Amino acid sequence: MPRIDLTLPELWDYRPELPEPSGFDAFWSRTLSEQAGYPLAVTLEPVDNGLVAVETFDLTFAGFGGDPVRAWLHLPAAALRDTERLPGVVQFQGYNGGRGLPHEHVFWALAGYAHLVMDTRGQGSGWTTGATGDPHGSGPSTPGFLTRGIGHPDAHFYRRVFVDAVRAVEVLRGHDLVDPDRVAVTGISQGGGIALAAGALADGVAAVMPDVPFLCDFRRAADLPTLDPYAEIGRYLAAHRDEVDLVFDTLAHFDGALMARRATAPALFSVAVADTICPPSTVFAAHHSYRAAKEIAVYEFNDHEGGGPFQQARQAAWLAEVLA
Amino acid sequence: MPRIDLTLPELWDYRPELPEPSGFDAFWSRTLSEQAGYPLAVTLEPVDNGLVAVETFDLTFAGFGGDPVRAWLHLPAAALRDTERLPGVVQFQGYNGGRGLPHEHVFWALAGYAHLVMDTRGQGSGWTTGATGDPHGSGPSTPGFLTRGIGHPDAHFYRRVFVDAVRAVEVLRGHDLVDPDRVAVTGISQGGGIALAAGALADGVAAVMPDVPFLCDFRRAADLPTLDPYAEIGRYLAAHRDEVDLVFDTLAHFDGALMARRATAPALFSVAVADTICPPSTVFAAHHSYRAAKEIAVYEFNDHEGGGPFQQARQAAWLAEVLA
Amino acid sequence: MPRIDLTLPELWDYRPELPEPSGFDAFWSRTLSEQAGYPLAVTLEPVDNGLVAVETFDLTFAGFGGDPVRAWLHLPAAALRDTERLPGVVQFQGYNGGRGLPHEHVFWALAGYAHLVMDTRGQGSGWTTGATGDPHGSGPSTPGFLTRGIGHPDAHFYRRVFVDAVRAVEVLRGHDLVDPDRVAVTGISQGGGIALAAGALADGVAAVMPDVPFLCDFRRAADLPTLDPYAEIGRYLAAHRDEVDLVFDTLAHFDGALMARRATAPALFSVAVADTICPPSTVFAAHHSYRAAKEIAVYEFNDHEGGGPFQQARQAAWLAEVLA
Amino acid sequence: MPRIDLTLPELWDYRPELPEPSGFDAFWSRTLSEQAGYPLAVTLEPVDNGLVAVETFDLTFAGFGGDPVRAWLHLPAAALRDTERLPGVVQFQGYNGGRGLPHEHVFWALAGYAHLVMDTRGQGSGWTTGATGDPHGSGPSTPGFLTRGIGHPDAHFYRRVFVDAVRAVEVLRGHDLVDPDRVAVTGISQGGGIALAAGALADGVAAVMPDVPFLCDFRRAADLPTLDPYAEIGRYLAAHRDEVDLVFDTLAHFDGALMARRATAPALFSVAVADTICPPSTVFAAHHSYRAAKEIAVYEFNDHEGGGPFQQARQAAWLAEVLA
Amino acid sequence: MPRIDLTLPELWDYRPELPEPSGFDAFWSRTLSEQAGYPLAVTLEPVDNGLVAVETFDLTFAGFGGDPVRAWLHLPAAALRDTERLPGVVQFQGYNGGRGLPHEHVFWALAGYAHLVMDTRGQGSGWTTGATGDPHGSGPSTPGFLTRGIGHPDAHFYRRVFVDAVRAVEVLRGHDLVDPDRVAVTGISQGGGIALAAGALADGVAAVMPDVPFLCDFRRAADLPTLDPYAEIGRYLAAHRDEVDLVFDTLAHFDGALMARRATAPALFSVAVADTICPPSTVFAAHHSYRAAKEIAVYEFNDHEGGGPFQQARQAAWLAEVLA
Amino acid sequence: MPRIDLTLPELWDYRPELPEPSGFDAFWSRTLSEQAGYPLAVTLEPVDNGLVAVETFDLTFAGFGGDPVRAWLHLPAAALRDTERLPGVVQFQGYNGGRGLPHEHVFWALAGYAHLVMDTRGQGSGWTTGATGDPHGSGPSTPGFLTRGIGHPDAHFYRRVFVDAVRAVEVLRGHDLVDPDRVAVTGISQGGGIALAAGALADGVAAVMPDVPFLCDFRRAADLPTLDPYAEIGRYLAAHRDEVDLVFDTLAHFDGALMARRATAPALFSVAVADTICPPSTVFAAHHSYRAAKEIAVYEFNDHEGGGPFQQARQAAWLAEVLA
Repeated sequence: MPRIDLTLPELWDYRPELPEPSGFDAFWSRTLSEQAGYPLAVTLEPVDNGLVAVETFDLTFAGFGGDPVRAWLHLPAAALRDTERLPGVVQFQGYNGGRGLPHEHVFWALAGYAHLVMDTRGQGSGWTTGATGDPHGSGPSTPGFLTRGIGHPDAHFYRRVFVDAVRAVEVLRGHDLVDPDRVAVTGISQGGGIALAAGALADGVAAVMPDVPFLCDFRRAADLPTLDPYAEIGRYLAAHRDEVDLVFDTLAHFDGALMARRATAPALFSVAVADTICPPSTVFAAHHSYRAAKEIAVYEFNDHEGGGPFQQARQAAWLAEVLA
Repeated sequence: MPRIDLTLPELWDYRPELPEPSGFDAFWSRTLSEQAGYPLAVTLEPVDNGLVAVETFDLTFAGFGGDPVRAWLHLPAAALRDTERLPGVVQFQGYNGGRGLPHEHVFWALAGYAHLVMDTRGQGSGWTTGATGDPHGSGPSTPGFLTRGIGHPDAHFYRRVFVDAVRAVEVLRGHDLVDPDRVAVTGISQGGGIALAAGALADGVAAVMPDVPFLCDFRRAADLPTLDPYAEIGRYLAAHRDEVDLVFDTLAHFDGALMARRATAPALFSVAVADTICPPSTVFAAHHSYRAAKEIAVYEFNDHEGGGPFQQARQAAWLAEVLA
Repeated sequence: MPRIDLTLPELWDYRPELPEPSGFDAFWSRTLSEQAGYPLAVTLEPVDNGLVAVETFDLTFAGFGGDPVRAWLHLPAAALRDTERLPGVVQFQGYNGGRGLPHEHVFWALAGYAHLVMDTRGQGSGWTTGATGDPHGSGPSTPGFLTRGIGHPDAHFYRRVFVDAVRAVEVLRGHDLVDPDRVAVTGISQGGGIALAAGALADGVAAVMPDVPFLCDFRRAADLPTLDPYAEIGRYLAAHRDEVDLVFDTLAHFDGALMARRATAPALFSVAVADTICPPSTVFAAHHSYRAAKEIAVYEFNDHEGGGPFQQARQAAWLAEVLA
Repeated sequence: MPRIDLTLPELWDYRPELPEPSGFDAFWSRTLSEQAGYPLAVTLEPVDNGLVAVETFDLTFAGFGGDPVRAWLHLPAAALRDTERLPGVVQFQGYNGGRGLPHEHVFWALAGYAHLVMDTRGQGSGWTTGATGDPHGSGPSTPGFLTRGIGHPDAHFYRRVFVDAVRAVEVLRGHDLVDPDRVAVTGISQGGGIALAAGALADGVAAVMPDVPFLCDFRRAADLPTLDPYAEIGRYLAAHRDEVDLVFDTLAHFDGALMARRATAPALFSVAVADTICPPSTVFAAHHSYRAAKEIAVYEFNDHEGGGPFQQARQAAWLAEVLA
Repeated sequence: MPRIDLTLPELWDYRPELPEPSGFDAFWSRTLSEQAGYPLAVTLEPVDNGLVAVETFDLTFAGFGGDPVRAWLHLPAAALRDTERLPGVVQFQGYNGGRGLPHEHVFWALAGYAHLVMDTRGQGSGWTTGATGDPHGSGPSTPGFLTRGIGHPDAHFYRRVFVDAVRAVEVLRGHDLVDPDRVAVTGISQGGGIALAAGALADGVAAVMPDVPFLCDFRRAADLPTLDPYAEIGRYLAAHRDEVDLVFDTLAHFDGALMARRATAPALFSVAVADTICPPSTVFAAHHSYRAAKEIAVYEFNDHEGGGPFQQARQAAWLAEVLA
Repeated sequence: MPRIDLTLPELWDYRPELPEPSGFDAFWSRTLSEQAGYPLAVTLEPVDNGLVAVETFDLTFAGFGGDPVRAWLHLPAAALRDTERLPGVVQFQGYNGGRGLPHEHVFWALAGYAHLVMDTRGQGSGWTTGATGDPHGSGPSTPGFLTRGIGHPDAHFYRRVFVDAVRAVEVLRGHDLVDPDRVAVTGISQGGGIALAAGALADGVAAVMPDVPFLCDFRRAADLPTLDPYAEIGRYLAAHRDEVDLVFDTLAHFDGALMARRATAPALFSVAVADTICPPSTVFAAHHSYRAAKEIAVYEFNDHEGGGPFQQARQAAWLAEVLA
């Protein structure tokens, strides 16, 4: 079991001074207001998922810059629904995953929620598949997504993704069967980092569940012997030796630990003490700076797989209570 | 992508002469008849799985030697069931997995089946958890389960597991809500090897779906540079240099490729050409010797993760047709 | 020393039937004619490289779609030049490299050539740096450049790169100080693959020197246990299990071994028998199908570093003779 | 040279507060008294070891629960013995080793001692072989011996092993040729951990020589990036995320650092500062808490191989003096 | 278990055409006759090895060029010796080992032989220690001993070592207590390669026991993905790309498979089929070309540790019979 | 990105008490005065390097003990030289490199310097080649150069190398075309360690540029988990467990951090914070103890490749200013 980070007692005390770019809030309000001109343009097509328990729709909406973003909308089968509006969960996926096959990521639908699984643009070619491209290019970058557009926050890959996420929340909250006041966001790893952003930037999020989140406290992540994808930063800087400040300034605009300072909804985090991909100090950095009600599930002997089904069960119980 | 085995064209032609222990059938009929004295002793307790779509029961039955074996019985929620008896699927788990948490392995219930997920005795401490011990000891062995009781087929670990599997089929076929003529067995890796055994040894199995099965063509598996658990064989023999014949004779009694010669139900295999854990030649050995109707899904660029959700979708479609 | 490929005698006999997409030539003539509308738009700025022996210019030209592509033009210092036009060499870089710093890649200038080092768009963030972005996006892809735009040859990353290369040759041949009839193309690894493409697609190339070239015989490369970047193919297909034919059809449009069939200029290849990145069989596939005069330097105990300075010396001697 | 632990100055200061289960002593006195009903039942058979210098007997005695435990009794050849009783050494073996072949582990006999090499039940399938099984089963466990019976101290594997060890001491002390007041215990790695237990639990041990001992300060061992077998703990807990306290409570009953607090005989430890299997802090934890006369040989640049023949020589000199 | 070589049936058929340097025999007769001027100059000092069963002497003799070479002479303790002369065994050590500590390598003395353990000059700094330097320098070489003096057979490291070995046999055969007609040579790995050379070059060797021998069939060893020390060849040639023929010509003068053609004494080989350091084909090459009576112990599941104590027992029985 | 050392703020504060052997200065003055009897015996032969921009001579001089040492003398081509004497740079090479091919290491000649590239005796068989042997043998050592002659400073490999370096400076300063007051020394890794020694021991060095230097603060380097070649120390001591003090005493005579205390010329260091071969603390140890004007370029995300071409550019600018 490799260990690359602090001990658990040290983690509870780890409170870094995260440098916040002066224009952070201005950047994001400008970014979001620029999207106002693109209507959501939601389309829904029923698909056969082979299941009797879940009803699935192929959902497309206009994300950043009006680019089409694909998702599944999973609902508990009609026989399982009563007349009340459903609570909802928007799920963002881990690095290079996508919405998967129609029967693949259906947990929250089984638990009784309207469940939207959003593709991450340009990804969907790793642990699970996706169908959404990213039509925007990039300056010089290292393989991976973390240094695409690293030269300026406006050009950065995650600017587009976070806008997609904000709009996905809007899509689910606007669905006829959904109660807009009871919509949560969640995700594992990259999905957790996007959930933190969506919780900070989207309107009306009722709960946030970041699981071993990625995209937090970038400088520390880059200084630890992490594996990919954080290691993309170090590889880029090993070539572009003169861009250290530029790179961390750009990334700071997407830091989940800074998003956490803008949180208003209650949150359930999870962290794995032996995590070599999203090291626990970076997760605690986000947790400790989270400005609303929060708790964190600590998995002392897990690497990046974290709590897995144990965390799923804990989330289901916690969310039922929060949205009750 | 490491590759350790033959090319795909060679795999289609790989038909080893598998030595069959002379007493193979006698061994198994004696083994099964010895169990006759132990009633199934099924108990069922409803559990809260947090899901609206699946109803789960904590099921215990008497396995080999009457030892208690734990399982979940997952059913589509009552609102999803009509008055007809349900088709069923018995799922065996991969190496060192178990039945998991109550909400964890529910795919076949979502697809409309009575779904029994059996613990593997003594395991359940790896990729997913279990709750069933194995009260039987062992002679000298190497860490792992493959060399426990390696000195004699009667003492071998998988003798007990395969008996558990046969009885699990009997349990599901005997459930009130289940149509005993429409019960399939399935499993990934070790679960696939157990499924092959259950298909050969249990009564009334209607379909067999071994996914990248383990426990086939042991000698070849041991001669290739496989990872664990096949590598346990080589590690044991690196110490016990004088037991080569003994070891492969014992293992032959549990070889899925010999079980395949006794098959009667139609089968859907899967195989991954880049598999470094269950190398494709050992899977093709079982497939090629399978004596009933069969097909095989080939994943050319996958390691042991195999077809994953693609194979789940294919199985669901295939099984619906076979059991129609 | 890992070895992943055939022995040297087998390599001399390795002559695969490479499937050639029916529209290969049409695809490339359409692609090139589409670029006709973009003038080369060359700009040249002298830069201080700190050297007394080489004069360097920051050169920009319009590549694919008119996108700006950066390069260095290195010339032997004025005191070293006489009144005759210089022979020229266009150098393409290895995977994720770029033109580097102004003093960095100057070998051919030292040897008396006008030497153009072209950035590879979007790369330049690895073993040496670059300054050219790629403004075009991509469908779902795996980290790296090989699966960007994998869904269609028109969208593929290397379509843009090969057009850039063709135009770079045109730029150097058009320079006042250069003799347009004595311009060679060269490159190591990816640079070698691009050189093969430039040799087939550009006008007036006088010699081709592909060093341990990448981008050849993709199917074999993907079936061997290669490291990155060929391994990107397998990782993509491990997710997109249903796109095997599509992927290899797209890639075939960029296969150096098919480009080799269209060669007219003499070539000096190199190959490393222990190469784990560009396996020697894929290099021999290109060499054996090369349709013009050719020779190949074989390095029996080298991995992807190949002949290094030994090959540089051999190239310098060979090229001097070819262009004499 | 990987390093995973404290520096040498820090190691000399490492004195952890080891939590001691309240019933520790009661557990062991109950355990030992429960064995009273099983007579030692020693049998001795001369074997041909091919040596002129050592006489070897195949010795079997009744260990925990009366289970047969195999050992070799090696004596200096008759020509080397005078009329006095011999001092004795009981040797316990490292993880998954056994007594080996009759000529294999004879050092202490060469040095003039009656030398008993005890099999470790169920092991003997690794670096050296054994012939003793463990007829007791286990609840769910991870491959290896450390988590067998982890659910309760009564069921734990090392409860049985430590009882075997106590009885092995009794066997050797009771042999006609042996002076019962001059019997030492020793072992490397797991053998060292067993020696610490035998020193604390057996009657009349005259000296203890734990070499780079395993089975000490489990929590720290599990929190460091150790290799197997300590890593078995973390793997088990990565699955059974809810059993952290239970696991460490069970293991504490077998902690050599707690055994050390009950020591009465003089001890010679050894420790390797670069040990990645039994990290030096865990060894120092046992050394520092050892309650009788003690010294420790420190090997600053060794991994788990420790002092090897250097430590053998030091032990021989030390033991001759202690038992003089 | 990595496998890098042929299967066992193929190994039995592997009979390479080993190129034999034309001057092979002349080289060795010149080399040996050049040494005639250096008297053996044997000195013997008794040392305290802490053992009652073995008597040890610190023996020095003049090796190649008269350089002092250290060894231990171990004898069964006087009480174990009768009046007859003892048979003898000269043991050569594995790569970078030495004679060890005085109590360390005493097996053949225990078995009743006069046992000479020779230091390998310049080594003795690895798995066991030595005390003999090598006062001769080298041309450019890669770390390790295999490429020292690679430029010419006269300068090569193993020329000096093989001469030392020949003289060590002469030393033991000349000892008062030893029967000169019953002296065997043995060794593991490098020691086995030296034993093959001593068997071919020394007078009066009665038996040869090469265990998983190194220094055989160099070209094949270099072409397989072996670990060190064979990999030193490839590393040297990866730099000195122009010296391939020179290197293999030099090495051929020291090839155990060519020495085997000059054998006259009976031999017992051993080979490990999964050996990644001395691949089995190279061992079989030596075995198959061995010109005297021979047998070979095959360990099918062992890496370079080979038969270990199993082979020791087999050697003891075989040698007793051969020398009877 | 593995990290094995302190953070950057800690590195700035790392000031170890380096034990200085009492006879350090006497050792070196004796060593240098012993060489007085060997004339430099410089020979120069022009060679064809294939370049128009650089003129190269094969230079041999008498190094330690009069042994011939090979080098290249590269000069800017005659057309690039004016009538003034040239400033000079002596370059020492990294571990197991050599002077390379005649066109290979010519940077400083391109920049306008007389550039002498010295072979490292006995090496030249790794990343670049050499042609100089080391005719002196060694006591027992581990593969590599660091423990050759480890038993006494007089016998140590680097004593000979440092004398070669001092004499190389003398050779270049004595060349007709060179201004003896403007000669700098430089090198990467081992070359940097030699440069520190040459700066301390040679007369008239005008500037020192150690790049990620090796051979500094040996004890810390050995205690960190460094890769080769520092790891050679630990491997040697893992065998020779009783020679710890001896080894570090010998090495201290060659410690660049002690050489730094004797520096008089201005220095430009470089250090890579993620360096796993020459860990940054050992480089800072040398920098902090450097007694003359100094600066250091810090590369925060680089491993041992350090600043590469970025550092070359910085050196060229710095040296032009220092020697102006």
